[in-house]
Amino acid sequence: MAASQPVSVLITGANRGLGLEMVKQMVEGPNPAKKLFACCRDPDGSRAAALQTLAKKHPNIICVVRLDATDLCSIKQAAQQVGSLLGTGGLNLLINNAGFLAKATLQDTTPEDMQGSFNTNVMGPMNIIKEFLPHLRTAAKASEVPGMSSSKAAVISISSFLGSFESVKHSYSFIPAVSYRISKAGLNMLTLCAAEELKKDGILFSVLHPGWVRTDMGGEEGEIDAPESVQGMLSVMASLTEKQNGAFLDYKGNTIAW
Amino acid sequence: MAASQPVSVLITGANRGLGLEMVKQMVEGPNPAKKLFACCRDPDGSRAAALQTLAKKHPNIICVVRLDATDLCSIKQAAQQVGSLLGTGGLNLLINNAGFLAKATLQDTTPEDMQGSFNTNVMGPMNIIKEFLPHLRTAAKASEVPGMSSSKAAVISISSFLGSFESVKHSYSFIPAVSYRISKAGLNMLTLCAAEELKKDGILFSVLHPGWVRTDMGGEEGEIDAPESVQGMLSVMASLTEKQNGAFLDYKGNTIAW
Ligand SMILES: NC(=O)c1ccc[n+]([C@@H]2O[C@H](COP(=O)([O-])OP(=O)(O)OC[C@H]3O[C@@H](n4cnc5c(N)ncnc54)[C@H](OP(=O)(O)O)[C@@H]3O)[C@@H](O)[C@H]2O)c1
Ligand SMILES: NC(=O)c1ccc[n+]([C@@H]2O[C@H](COP(=O)([O-])OP(=O)(O)OC[C@H]3O[C@@H](n4cnc5c(N)ncnc54)[C@H](OP(=O)(O)O)[C@@H]3O)[C@@H](O)[C@H]2O)c1
Repeated sequence: MAASQPVSVLITGANRGLGLEMVKQMVEGPNPAKKLFACCRDPDGSRAAALQTLAKKHPNIICVVRLDATDLCSIKQAAQQVGSLLGTGGLNLLINNAGFLAKATLQDTTPEDMQGSFNTNVMGPMNIIKEFLPHLRTAAKASEVPGMSSSKAAVISISSFLGSFESVKHSYSFIPAVSYRISKAGLNMLTLCAAEELKKDGILFSVLHPGWVRTDMGGEEGEIDAPESVQGMLSVMASLTEKQNGAFLDYKGNTIAW
Repeated sequence: MAASQPVSVLITGANRGLGLEMVKQMVEGPNPAKKLFACCRDPDGSRAAALQTLAKKHPNIICVVRLDATDLCSIKQAAQQVGSLLGTGGLNLLINNAGFLAKATLQDTTPEDMQGSFNTNVMGPMNIIKEFLPHLRTAAKASEVPGMSSSKAAVISISSFLGSFESVKHSYSFIPAVSYRISKAGLNMLTLCAAEELKKDGILFSVLHPGWVRTDMGGEEGEIDAPESVQGMLSVMASLTEKQNGAFLDYKGNTIAW
C-alpha cells in the first residue's frame, strides 16, 4: 500500500492472527498509516499482550480500542472513542476482520454455533458499519480525490471462500462448517447491499478471502502464513477502485464467484 | 403433481398466504396427498380460522399442528406429534414456507429485523430439517423407487429472488430489505449444504422462488396471485429429480443464479 496508504485505519480482531499481522505491516511498512485503531475484546487480558507490545513501540500510531463485535454497546463506545481521536479527516479504512468459526456438519451444528457465527460474522459487521458510518462519510467528504479507494473511504470485510456457493460441492466433504458458510454468505450479501446503498456517499465496500492461512483458525495444515496473506490483501486493498465496489476477491486479487 | 404426489406432506406457515394455498391445492387437486400436516404458530387463534375450516372439510387428510419456526421446543414437539401420526412410510415432503420480511435499508435495519429474519428464515428451517430428519430418512428408506424426488423424500424451502446476489444491482433501489436478503441467502446456503450432506440418504433439497405474489407479504402490487404461484411451484416440485438436488428455481422452473 505504497503511495495510497490511508491516513486512518480501524481493524477488528487485531490482537492475534490476521488482524495482528495487518497492524504490524500497516505500521512497519514503508508508508505507515498515521492513525491505526487496533480493536480487540479484551485489551487488558493476556490475549492482547502481543498487540500491546506492538502498540508501545508505535505509541503515536497505534491506539488499542476495546470492541466486542457481538456487543452493540461496546461498538457504540468504540465509535465514540475513535470519533474523539479522529481529526477532521474522518476514518478512511475500516477492516472487519474479527471472525468466529464452527466446523460442524449440518447434523452436528448447534443453535449456539449458528448464533455465534451470525453474531460475530454478520450482525457484528452490520452494527460496526452503521456506527462508524459517520466517520467514513467524513473521510469521503474530506477527500478531494474523485472516485473510490481504500485510502479515501472503504469498508473491507474478511470473508471466506467457504461463503461461496460455488465452493460447496468441492469443499464440503473436507470442511462442512455449515454455520460459518451461512454467516460468510450473509456477510457477502451485507457487503453487496452496503455497496449499493452507499455508493452515492463515495464509500467502497468489498469482501476479501485471505487464503487458507496458518492461524489459530486456519490450523497448521493451512497453505500460507499470515505475512503472505496480509501482504497480498493489503496490496489488493490498495488497488481497489469504484470498479471493485461490491467485489469478492481473494488475497491475490482474483474474483471469487458468489 | 399428478402421478407422483407424495403420500405425506408437512407445510410450515400454512394458515395464510402461499402456505394456505398450498394446503388447498394439495388436498383439492386431482391426486391429493394422503396425509397433510398443516403447521402454524397459533392453531386456535383467529389467524388460523381459514385453515381450520379447510381442515374440517378434509378431516382424514389435514392435521393442523402447532409449530413456531423460532421456537426449538415447539419444533421438537411437532416432530414428535407428526412422528406418532406417520405410518411406516415416513414423511415424504417437508415444505419450509414460513417467512419473515423486513424491508428496511441497511441504515434503517434494526437488530430486531436482523434477528427476526435470521430466526424465522434460517435458524427455523435448520432446526426443522434436523428434527424431522428421522421421518424423512424413514421415507427415503421405505421407498423402492431409485433416485430422488419430492414424492420420495424432499425438503423444499421457499426462498426469494431477493436472496440472489445477482438480483441486488437491479432490485435494491426498489426494495432494499437487507436483513431479508441476508437471511434468504443464508437459507440458500443451508439448503446447498444439506443437499451435499444428505444426498447419500436419498433426500432431495431445493429452494424455490414463488414469484412476486399478492399475499400479505408480497402486497397488492405483486405480479401474480397465490393460486398461480402455487400451481407453478407444485408442478416444479413434482418434476424434481436428483439433477435438481441443491437447485434454486423459480415457480416456472427457471434456475436463479445464487
Ligand atoms: N485463517 C484462515 O485460513 C481464514 C480463511 C478464511 C477466512 N478467514 C477469516 O479471516 C479473519 C481472521 O481470521 P484469523 O485466521 O486471524 O482467526 P484467529 O486467529 O482465530 O483470530 C480471530 C480474531 O477474531 C477475534 N474475535 C473473535 N470473536 C470476536 C468478537 N466477538 N469481537 C471481537 N473480536 C473477536 C479474536 O479475538 P480473541 O482473541 O478475543 O478471541 C481474534 O483476534 C476471520 O474473519 C476469518 O473468518 C480466515
Ligand atoms: N409473497 C411474495 O411475493 C414472496 C416472494 C418471495 C418469497 N416469498 C416467501 O414465501 C413464503 C410465504 O410467504 P407469503 O407471501 O405467503 O407470506 P405471508 O402471507 O406474510 O405469510 C407468512 C406465513 O409465515 C408464517 N410465519 C411467520 N413467522 C412464523 C413463525 N415464526 N413460525 C411459524 N410461522 C410463521 C405466518 O404465520 P402467522 O399468521 O402466524 O404470522 C404466515 O403463515 C415466505 O417464506 C416468503 O419469504 C414470498
